Amino acid sequence: MGEFDLIRRFFTRPTPHAVLGVGDDCALLQSAPGMQMAISTDMLVGGRHFFADTDPLALGHKCLAVNLSDLAACGARPLAFTLALALPEADEAWLAPFAQGLLALADAHGCELIGGDTTRGPLNICITVFGEVPAQSHHARRPLVPTSALLRSGAQAGDDIYVSGTLGDAALALQALLGRVALPPEVLAQARQRLERPSPRVALGQALRGVASACADVSDGLAGDLGHILERSGLGAEVEVDRVLPLLAARRYYPGGEAQFDQQIGATLKAQHPQALALQCVLAGGDDYELVFSAAPAERAAVQQAAAQSATPVTRIGTMQASPGLRLVDGLGRSVAPQFASFDHFSAAQPSPHRP
Amino acid sequence: MGEFDLIRRFFTRPTPHAVLGVGDDCALLQSAPGMQMAISTDMLVGGRHFFADTDPLALGHKCLAVNLSDLAACGARPLAFTLALALPEADEAWLAPFAQGLLALADAHGCELIGGDTTRGPLNICITVFGEVPAQSHHARRPLVPTSALLRSGAQAGDDIYVSGTLGDAALALQALLGRVALPPEVLAQARQRLERPSPRVALGQALRGVASACADVSDGLAGDLGHILERSGLGAEVEVDRVLPLLAARRYYPGGEAQFDQQIGATLKAQHPQALALQCVLAGGDDYELVFSAAPAERAAVQQAAAQSATPVTRIGTMQASPGLRLVDGLGRSVAPQFASFDHFSAAQPSPHRP
Repeated sequence: MGEFDLIRRFFTRPTPHAVLGVGDDCALLQSAPGMQMAISTDMLVGGRHFFADTDPLALGHKCLAVNLSDLAACGARPLAFTLALALPEADEAWLAPFAQGLLALADAHGCELIGGDTTRGPLNICITVFGEVPAQSHHARRPLVPTSALLRSGAQAGDDIYVSGTLGDAALALQALLGRVALPPEVLAQARQRLERPSPRVALGQALRGVASACADVSDGLAGDLGHILERSGLGAEVEVDRVLPLLAARRYYPGGEAQFDQQIGATLKAQHPQALALQCVLAGGDDYELVFSAAPAERAAVQQAAAQSATPVTRIGTMQASPGLRLVDGLGRSVAPQFASFDHFSAAQPSPHRP
Repeated sequence: MGEFDLIRRFFTRPTPHAVLGVGDDCALLQSAPGMQMAISTDMLVGGRHFFADTDPLALGHKCLAVNLSDLAACGARPLAFTLALALPEADEAWLAPFAQGLLALADAHGCELIGGDTTRGPLNICITVFGEVPAQSHHARRPLVPTSALLRSGAQAGDDIYVSGTLGDAALALQALLGRVALPPEVLAQARQRLERPSPRVALGQALRGVASACADVSDGLAGDLGHILERSGLGAEVEVDRVLPLLAARRYYPGGEAQFDQQIGATLKAQHPQALALQCVLAGGDDYELVFSAAPAERAAVQQAAAQSATPVTRIGTMQASPGLRLVDGLGRSVAPQFASFDHFSAAQPSPHRP
C-alpha cells in the first residue's frame, strides 16, 4: 500500500447519515422527502489562496469553512462533503493537523466526509459541500425558483440590508502579516483569528429562511457580495458609512479607540481620509465569511429573532433601492463617496481564498 | 470584469433539470422521490495525470469521462456535475476546445454543469459528478446497504466475472507515445482513441442494476479493480488468460494477427513470455474505463440482455471463489502465473488519471 493509500485511510471515517461513504466508486446520499440538495465547490491553491506555510490545522478549518459559508448563504443545513487533495508529498506531519482542523469543523456542523481523491501535485484543496433545504418556499416574494433556499435574487426596493458579525478584520490581519500596517500584538491576534479561523454563519442562514428576501456570503468583501445581490435582484442600495465602520472590530478594540486607530493605522497607508483604510477593509477586504442579506421592514422583529436564535449579531446597514448602483451615505442620506474616492491601496497579489 | 470572470461565463449554461444552476452561492438539485444521489470526485493534475500538451478537446472529454465511469460502476444515471479549474493563465485558445470536449460529453449523457470555481494556479481539474439510483434494492443478496446501486461488495463465490468492451489499448497507446513500443500507425491511432477519448459505460451500468452482484470501473487496471471487488466482497477469483488476452483490441487488429503482435511488440520490451506485454496491458494497464462485474450463473441471460440493451459487448472472464487471491488460469483451471511471473516493465512515471 502506497503513501497515498495510507492518506486516504486517514480520511476514511464513519458516515452515519450517508447511505454509503468512502470506499466504493461513488458515495450515496439520500434526501429526506421534500428536501433539495444545495451544492457548492471551492478550489484553494497553495501560495495563491493561502500562504504556503499556513498552519495546517487552521488551513483544514478554513477550507471547509469557506464551503460551509456558501451553504449558510443559502440557508442550507450541512450534510456532507467530498475532499480532493493534491499534495507535493505525502507528509503526515502536515496531514495530521490538516485533517484535525478539517474534521473538527466538519463534526461541529454534522457534515460528513463521504468521498474524495488524493493525488501528488502542487498543493491544491478542492471541497464540494452538500446541504439540504426544504423545496417548498415559505417566502411569497420569490415565485421563480421553487425552493425555500435563500438566493441572491429576491430582494425588493425598500428592503433593509443587514450583515452578520464583524467585517474587515481578516483583511486587516492580512495587511499586517504582509508588513503593510503595524498592529499592536493583541489587536493582530484577534484579527488574525478572523483571517485563519472564520466562523461560517450556518445557524443564522437557516434561521433566516422565510425571513430574508435575498442573501449572499461575504467572501470577496461587502461591496462585491452585496453587489451580487443587487445584480441578481435588479436593484441598487444605499449603505450608511456610520453603520458599517463600527463593524471593523480591530478599530473598536484598538488601544485608545476608533480615533486612535484612524490616526495611527489609517495614516500608515497614506489614505486621503483617516477612515479610508477602515472603510476599505470593511467594504472590500474579503475573507469575512459573514452573511449579507435583505429583508422587508416588516420582518425587523423576525430578523432579530433569527439573530438571537442563532446567537449571531446582525447589523442593519442600509436600504435596497430601485435605482441601480451602490451608494455610500451618511446618516442623513447624503452621498459620502467623494471623501473615500481613492483608497485602493491593496495589492492584488495577496493570497485570498476568493481571489481567482 | 476579469479574465476569470469571463471564463466563468464560458461555463454558465442552462440547467433545465437542476432547480438552480451556476450563479448563486449554491446550486440546487432535487431528487425524485425514492431516489438516492450517487456522488464521485476526481482530481486530475497537469503533467501527472495527463501530458501538459494533451489536446484540450480530448482532455475536456476525458476529465468528465473518468467521473461518469464512476457513476456507471454504481449503475447511476448521470444528472449533473461541478467543475473546479485551476489554470496557469486565462487562455481562451485552450479553454474553448476544453469546454467543447467537456460539454459535448456532458450533453450526450444529459449531465448538467451546475456549479464550479475557476482560479489561477498550476493546471488542475477537479470534477464532482452527481447521478441517481433508486433507493430500493432489487437485489436480494445485499441487505446491508439499502440501495439498488451496484457496489464493490455483494459478489458471491461461484458468481461469474465479466468485463465490458476492450482492455489494455489505452495503456499500450501510452507506451507507444512514450516511445517504448513501436506500433503501426493505424494500430496506434485506434489505441490512442481509447487513451484519449474513453467511453464511460453509463448505459451498461444502469442496465446491470438488479443483475450484477458487484461492480467497479476499470481505471487502474483489471487486476487492481477486480481486486477492489474481491476485497470488499471477501472473496478470491480465477481469471482465464485465454479469455482476457483477446480483450486487447490492438493485438487482434495487428497486421498479421495476434501471433505477429506477440512476436513483434511483446518482444520489444524483452518480456519473458511473448504474451506478457499483452497480459500486462490487459491486467494492469489502467485508463480503460470499462466495467468489471460479477453476476450469479443464473443471470447469464440477463447479463446478455443488459449488454444488448446498452449496445455494449461484455465478456465472461472467470469465476468468484471463496479462497482469497486472484489466480490466472488456463482453460482447464490450471495456474499459469509462473509463465507471467515477471512482466513489470512499466514505469510509474507515466501520466495516468488514476495514479496518485
